[in-house]
Amino acid sequence: MQIAILLFDRLTALDAVGPYEVLSRLPGADTRFVAVEPGPKQTDNGVLALVADHATADVPSPDVLVVPGGTTGVEVSMNDDRTLDWLRAAHETSTWTTSVCTGSLILGAAGILKGLKATTHWAAMERLRQFGAEPTSERVVRQGKVITAAGVSSGIDMALTLAAEIAGPDIAQAIQLGIEYDPQPPFDSGSPQKAKPEIVDALRALVGRRSR
Amino acid sequence: MQIAILLFDRLTALDAVGPYEVLSRLPGADTRFVAVEPGPKQTDNGVLALVADHATADVPSPDVLVVPGGTTGVEVSMNDDRTLDWLRAAHETSTWTTSVCTGSLILGAAGILKGLKATTHWAAMERLRQFGAEPTSERVVRQGKVITAAGVSSGIDMALTLAAEIAGPDIAQAIQLGIEYDPQPPFDSGSPQKAKPEIVDALRALVGRRSR
Repeated sequence: MQIAILLFDRLTALDAVGPYEVLSRLPGADTRFVAVEPGPKQTDNGVLALVADHATADVPSPDVLVVPGGTTGVEVSMNDDRTLDWLRAAHETSTWTTSVCTGSLILGAAGILKGLKATTHWAAMERLRQFGAEPTSERVVRQGKVITAAGVSSGIDMALTLAAEIAGPDIAQAIQLGIEYDPQPPFDSGSPQKAKPEIVDALRALVGRRSR
Repeated sequence: MQIAILLFDRLTALDAVGPYEVLSRLPGADTRFVAVEPGPKQTDNGVLALVADHATADVPSPDVLVVPGGTTGVEVSMNDDRTLDWLRAAHETSTWTTSVCTGSLILGAAGILKGLKATTHWAAMERLRQFGAEPTSERVVRQGKVITAAGVSSGIDMALTLAAEIAGPDIAQAIQLGIEYDPQPPFDSGSPQKAKPEIVDALRALVGRRSR
């Protein structure tokens, strides 16, 4: 089972590494980090690079496709024909096509979300409409073989859901135990419905500035 | 505020990237991935490399020290004098010294956990005793300026706890919202107390084989 995780400059590291840490533990997983041009890809803040060992051109038909999000990196990918052409072709033969955070905007730009319910980072939710998708405020949204996940850390939940679909609940639970995913955040502030309104407003303003 | 995250070959990516994704969002954070020899460091399964831009020698006194875990990479680091000497010296001037997963075994090998309660990946818990630490089955264990976290994904919870100590609860909650950390795992199997006993036993056998 070939799993391709797309990398590009200015991605959000946890969007990619969360699903990777789960899916690469599936029995028989052949996990490949791919990029249009292989090599080190800087994260959104420029302090870390993740290395893509494979060119997208060399991984044309993965079984599982994972598209992470990011800030400016997403805007570039949404307008990059080589990225979008690869995604469209890979999606034709994939068993699962997935995204984390604003990675769904890249799927959208490739035309993959037309007519589907989908999610993304809460602050980018309305942008899904321009691709004909129906914004859906759930952590993991499945529509046939397309699974989109909410912001950044939600990729872990998405990948565990997918692991259960692929290999059954016992394997998924073993992976959850292996990465000791027994979350105990010290605050209950992880969604705009739960966080203090002034924190939501401040962050929405900040995200708006960054993506413009 | 300088934050140094140690990288080494055969580390577990999420151990490092979880805390990074939280701590690098702190106001004024100067986050540096460091290694004894800078460059790309392979993760435990060899399918991804994270790039350390800085040599440990060039980052002698970070304010915050984060030591991730891994499989064979931890054993190597526990016996590497350059790693241990750097840790001991950095710990003398750090404001916070932290670890995720079996990273605490490296702190232990450096003599930093003597007489302290500490945690690590559940399957490695008893190994803490050889360093004079008291194994403690909690997700995040704080002893003065030393914070150890349980397996892999627990680094996110640890880092949010630390973010609140450093910058206050509002900033920590804004970061939690920014990474949309509203965990909803599809199973409740993330600790040996919660997982099915046969899954715990199977995984314990597997981890035992790997680390020998």
